[in-house]
Amino acid sequence: MIEPVDKRMATAIQAYIDNLSKPKGSLGRLESLAVQIALIQRTLHPALTHPCHILFGGDHGIEREGVTCTPREVTAQQMMNYAQGGGAVGMFCRQHGFTLRVVDVGVDYDFDHDRYPRIIDRKIAHGTRDFLYEPAMSADEWHRALAVGAEQVDACAGEGANVVSLGEMGAGNTSPSSVLMHLLLGIPLQDCVGAGSGLDRAGVRHKLEVLTEAVERYKKVKGERLEVGEATAYFAGFEMAAAVGAMLRAAERRMVVLVDGFIMTACMLVASLLDNAVLDYAVFGHQGDEDGHRRMLDAMGAQPLLNLGLRLGEGTGALCAYPIVESAVNMLNDMDSFDHAHITKYF
Amino acid sequence: MIEPVDKRMATAIQAYIDNLSKPKGSLGRLESLAVQIALIQRTLHPALTHPCHILFGGDHGIEREGVTCTPREVTAQQMMNYAQGGGAVGMFCRQHGFTLRVVDVGVDYDFDHDRYPRIIDRKIAHGTRDFLYEPAMSADEWHRALAVGAEQVDACAGEGANVVSLGEMGAGNTSPSSVLMHLLLGIPLQDCVGAGSGLDRAGVRHKLEVLTEAVERYKKVKGERLEVGEATAYFAGFEMAAAVGAMLRAAERRMVVLVDGFIMTACMLVASLLDNAVLDYAVFGHQGDEDGHRRMLDAMGAQPLLNLGLRLGEGTGALCAYPIVESAVNMLNDMDSFDHAHITKYF
Repeated sequence: MIEPVDKRMATAIQAYIDNLSKPKGSLGRLESLAVQIALIQRTLHPALTHPCHILFGGDHGIEREGVTCTPREVTAQQMMNYAQGGGAVGMFCRQHGFTLRVVDVGVDYDFDHDRYPRIIDRKIAHGTRDFLYEPAMSADEWHRALAVGAEQVDACAGEGANVVSLGEMGAGNTSPSSVLMHLLLGIPLQDCVGAGSGLDRAGVRHKLEVLTEAVERYKKVKGERLEVGEATAYFAGFEMAAAVGAMLRAAERRMVVLVDGFIMTACMLVASLLDNAVLDYAVFGHQGDEDGHRRMLDAMGAQPLLNLGLRLGEGTGALCAYPIVESAVNMLNDMDSFDHAHITKYF
Repeated sequence: MIEPVDKRMATAIQAYIDNLSKPKGSLGRLESLAVQIALIQRTLHPALTHPCHILFGGDHGIEREGVTCTPREVTAQQMMNYAQGGGAVGMFCRQHGFTLRVVDVGVDYDFDHDRYPRIIDRKIAHGTRDFLYEPAMSADEWHRALAVGAEQVDACAGEGANVVSLGEMGAGNTSPSSVLMHLLLGIPLQDCVGAGSGLDRAGVRHKLEVLTEAVERYKKVKGERLEVGEATAYFAGFEMAAAVGAMLRAAERRMVVLVDGFIMTACMLVASLLDNAVLDYAVFGHQGDEDGHRRMLDAMGAQPLLNLGLRLGEGTGALCAYPIVESAVNMLNDMDSFDHAHITKYF
């Protein structure tokens, strides 16, 4: 479904970049980023149009097990805050000219939609079930959540977007991300579990115990054979499933996909196991402090643009990196060649 | 001359940041950056106005010794290119709304000022002398170059700037930067010498031999006692001396100073040894690939914002980081508090 980019074009694109008026390779990561975007858009002169940020919200049954210091009520409160332009996500969207879509896929709260018309209602359930005891969502719910993500990307594309950034709000959602990282990459669970929004050491220990038990029970029921979609539905939140659907659809549409921190990286991991070509379209914005994020990025061969110690979610790590993506595109469109600038080519 | 910031205010600023609608500390490096800028401007609601980028150009006598793969003529060619909006520096200035000042402090070329009115003529000499044999500049020239830098910052401030970014063009200028790093920090010379704009291994070896000899001869004449200004005048370029003067004046005027890669970091090192309070005003944009840059940054306790493998100079590493500085300021001005957003405070 996703067409891989044609990497044979990369040599020609790099040759073009090498003739811009600067020493060869001297713009570092901007150059590889420019090659990627030129490959995605199949042109030496790409353009980023009408950037959209989609923030999916959902609550998690596992939050009942004390694995997070963010109370469940905060998910709904923050969704209302975002819908009024609040939060760090609102600030970054205004700074970088993103249209923001706030989508309720599974928040455990009935929003007053007259009061908050900007919260898009795609609620599948009032939060997932507790994966310590049962699957977080059914197969049907998983597919419906994927479809919500795809539909939102289609809406962005309809408004003219060719770049989409993804973020999430869901109290407790580092827990499913850690479990999926463990199951899908075979990395020991303790290396996948971190402090989330601010657990202390005892809190992290408890979180690890709960997740270890959840994984043991899951394996007892399912055995060792793993099916990616099924495992994701068992542990993920609705906001995560929607993000996976959004990533896959955006890549199908040849859009640039900006990936945020730990949770969105886990979603991109799931998406890449469903269709590896999605990675051709992924730009990783930020390496967060959450333990294990680096290892998950490495497993995907991802080189995040920033490392600023952000650990907020909402997509802020992706949005914060956007000017660098713009710089890479500007380099292709706005820099002169050696020949034209009458400069001795010295490499 | 430079007034240190009043660090006693930092607690109150951090308390304000901690009440914004996000988990404590979750905006990472943006938070410490916001504290720094609030301290500089002595307000919880700082503003960045009319950002200016000053690019100083100068040639180096040491370039005659084959220590760089950038031929001397490129300095003048690039200055003309910049003055017409070319180069990466032009692209970044347009993207981020910087006014660009291109200043000839010591380029070995007589510009046609009718054709290039945007090159500001403050030429002190047609390049420095070769520090393998004699001081690069006299004490009088050093002070005149410092004054050029200060005067350019005054001009930016006169236009309303409270943030200034500094960059340079000068074929061969990683060599004086490496020598100054070695002499001023006591780091072995071989750990201070890198590939510059693209030397191969044999080239780096030759560069190290030349610089080792230059340092030995210098010490034979001057002895082991080191005076910072005198040593800088002995090795630095006019563009570097002007940058030192600009840094000191900008800090005197309580402006935010954006510092670029290896060469500008070496200049900030010199400035900080002349007046340590300058570091309160310095924001380091980028850690480059030039060997030793990390060690020099560590010696100043600097935490650069980006690490994108840029090695271009011109100030591009500082400019590329500017949106992050804006984000830090926006966080203070544009984010809601927990109380006001009706969110349970959960830390």
